[in-house]
Amino acid sequence: MQNSNRRPQGGFVERWVVGKIFETIGRAPVTIAVGGRQYPPPGVEPLFRVSIRDFSTLLELLRDPEIGFGEAYSEGRVEVDGDLVQFLVTVYETIKGPRWYSRAASRWMEWWQNNTPRRSRENIHHHYDLGNDFYKLWLDRQLVYTCAYFPREEMTLEQAQIAKMDHICRKMELRAGESVVEAGCGWGALALHMARNYGVRVKAFNISHEQIEYARRRARQENLTGFVEFIEDDYRNISGKFDVFVSVGMLEHVGEQHYREFGEAIHRSIGDAGRGLLHFIGRSYKTQFSRWIRKRIFPGAYAPALREAIEVFEPHGYSVLDVENLRRHYIRTIEHWLDRFERARGEVRRMYEERFERAWRLYLAGSIAGFETSTLQLFQIVFAGTKCRPLALTRDHLYREPCVPAMS
Amino acid sequence: MQNSNRRPQGGFVERWVVGKIFETIGRAPVTIAVGGRQYPPPGVEPLFRVSIRDFSTLLELLRDPEIGFGEAYSEGRVEVDGDLVQFLVTVYETIKGPRWYSRAASRWMEWWQNNTPRRSRENIHHHYDLGNDFYKLWLDRQLVYTCAYFPREEMTLEQAQIAKMDHICRKMELRAGESVVEAGCGWGALALHMARNYGVRVKAFNISHEQIEYARRRARQENLTGFVEFIEDDYRNISGKFDVFVSVGMLEHVGEQHYREFGEAIHRSIGDAGRGLLHFIGRSYKTQFSRWIRKRIFPGAYAPALREAIEVFEPHGYSVLDVENLRRHYIRTIEHWLDRFERARGEVRRMYEERFERAWRLYLAGSIAGFETSTLQLFQIVFAGTKCRPLALTRDHLYREPCVPAMS
Repeated sequence: MQNSNRRPQGGFVERWVVGKIFETIGRAPVTIAVGGRQYPPPGVEPLFRVSIRDFSTLLELLRDPEIGFGEAYSEGRVEVDGDLVQFLVTVYETIKGPRWYSRAASRWMEWWQNNTPRRSRENIHHHYDLGNDFYKLWLDRQLVYTCAYFPREEMTLEQAQIAKMDHICRKMELRAGESVVEAGCGWGALALHMARNYGVRVKAFNISHEQIEYARRRARQENLTGFVEFIEDDYRNISGKFDVFVSVGMLEHVGEQHYREFGEAIHRSIGDAGRGLLHFIGRSYKTQFSRWIRKRIFPGAYAPALREAIEVFEPHGYSVLDVENLRRHYIRTIEHWLDRFERARGEVRRMYEERFERAWRLYLAGSIAGFETSTLQLFQIVFAGTKCRPLALTRDHLYREPCVPAMS
Repeated sequence: MQNSNRRPQGGFVERWVVGKIFETIGRAPVTIAVGGRQYPPPGVEPLFRVSIRDFSTLLELLRDPEIGFGEAYSEGRVEVDGDLVQFLVTVYETIKGPRWYSRAASRWMEWWQNNTPRRSRENIHHHYDLGNDFYKLWLDRQLVYTCAYFPREEMTLEQAQIAKMDHICRKMELRAGESVVEAGCGWGALALHMARNYGVRVKAFNISHEQIEYARRRARQENLTGFVEFIEDDYRNISGKFDVFVSVGMLEHVGEQHYREFGEAIHRSIGDAGRGLLHFIGRSYKTQFSRWIRKRIFPGAYAPALREAIEVFEPHGYSVLDVENLRRHYIRTIEHWLDRFERARGEVRRMYEERFERAWRLYLAGSIAGFETSTLQLFQIVFAGTKCRPLALTRDHLYREPCVPAMS
């Protein structure tokens, strides 16, 4: 690695590197500052400024912008003047697609983070077992860590998460007495909601130890242990027969190499007479998941193109009944999270080091930017087997009365 | 071809052939009768009887059941005792998938019916230029020859077709003054509906001469010629810039070899700021389209797996916003058509030969059975470019007030 102190200050090499970075980020209106020297963007009026601490950081950004920016931002070697989300939106819109180096590195990462049952446990532990107290700082009261649903403008995050759970239950047309299996249940909010409000029996699977413990405590507190069973196990080990399969925000952790196994787990659980819902972060086209996010935030994560997710159903002849794209609801959801996160900044810094706090801010801001620029989408898919009982002929039951959350 | 008169009546060979046919149709409760000799199905109580006129027809059914049954039924060499639709549902549920012979023949058919611009014209002419008077016998008053939408049980076919057009217009969130391009406009009902009821300007393309002539007459009668232009041309020749792209029941005629061209036509018309809707007969998995239907009814037709249809959008980065499966609405629609067709049987026979009338009855009955058994699906996909103006955050506007058709 070059030692920045030995480089000629603002000399030819630095100008050349900055020029190359401008080529990569396209016509983004960003001034680059290196150790105080300003390089305005060629041909556009600057709206943002990125201050890069030293020449070696600048080189990192050139060599591997994806990892380089994430690492340098987390470590405070890069600062952004202006709104971080808007800066990322701007750059996402103009930046060039992944280069050969990034594509190769992505493949390598896929291989070593491959979600085998053992590795899945490590990958999930990395993220979800950070401590429930951390998530309590910025999620809603029920710790629902997936896209909320805002059918009314003025809804709070807590209301919108309940509205989302209700929207899902209505889409699945749950009837009292039916059985539901949930793959990847988080802290258990949906499983409890289904049992409490729809009278169904739920078996909910998750491999995050802390989440399962928390969910079990909630079930005991609510006297729902007879109706909801929380099981600390992999989706591949789901056993039993159910009427309904539901998975909210887990497909992202399955990884494309394992979609066949995932489809088989669905078919084993509900056969041809069942139905279900998948809710997941997807895309409009196939592309790699951010390597920095996979390195620091979500090991093993992958957001499938809608087409790839639908391939999960094909071998089993499931019919897709309904797909809804809630992309813009996720923008609003993460804006709430980021806002709460910023307000809890002091507490986050007391719990973890600054580097962690900056990495998570970047992850949340980058996620908003990803949904804002349509790089990321949020799909809910309702599917049913060929022997499923007739479901509603239209979707008007989802919209019949205004959704009044039971808990505000 | 064997001469049936020389075969030993009901001998070993006949029994062997019947046995092979039972193997193909699985455990369907169907008695096979050949020249008066009855062969009950092995191990199940018969619910239907298929009477086969002679041994050579029996051999045709063995050699190529798909084409054989269609041809023999049309020519009256096969009769079905019992409800034709229910018979087909029963057989579809138990019949074995296509054999190597059928798959190879299907490929060959794809090749010679390939929808090049010239061949498309012939293929479309074959079906849609049979004479408007024929279609008037059994379609609704506006000649809408695609799946209707029955949001209320008691709706007539005429009302349900208007409800369908309205559902589509609402999904596309049409605003007065916007411009719409329609690929494959049939007899023009949707184009006129959009212009009349939503104040948009429409350019509608179709390569069926009779349909375009009819649509132009209607536009003149309704004084809508300033708002709707009907153009007798291929979707590949669509020119101009529009806000919205819509295609209802045409993707089935595009053929999978041409999905890229179709996607390019969409992108040329509406760019990244546009939005649109595709409505088409699709499937839950990839399989060939009935060869008999392609031979006698719809040359060049192909029903894509949902995944394949979504691939149309991927190269252009369109986001899928909404997918609705209207399969069961199509069952009801074709039940209406078949009912009207049966009541007009006398007139159909006066216009065409009996063979034609029987072929069309089989096509309509087989289509109901296809949707009934989930072999066929009906998808409506709403999509939008990344620069599209913000559309509604929820779908409740599709369900807000009961849809009251303007024309009953």
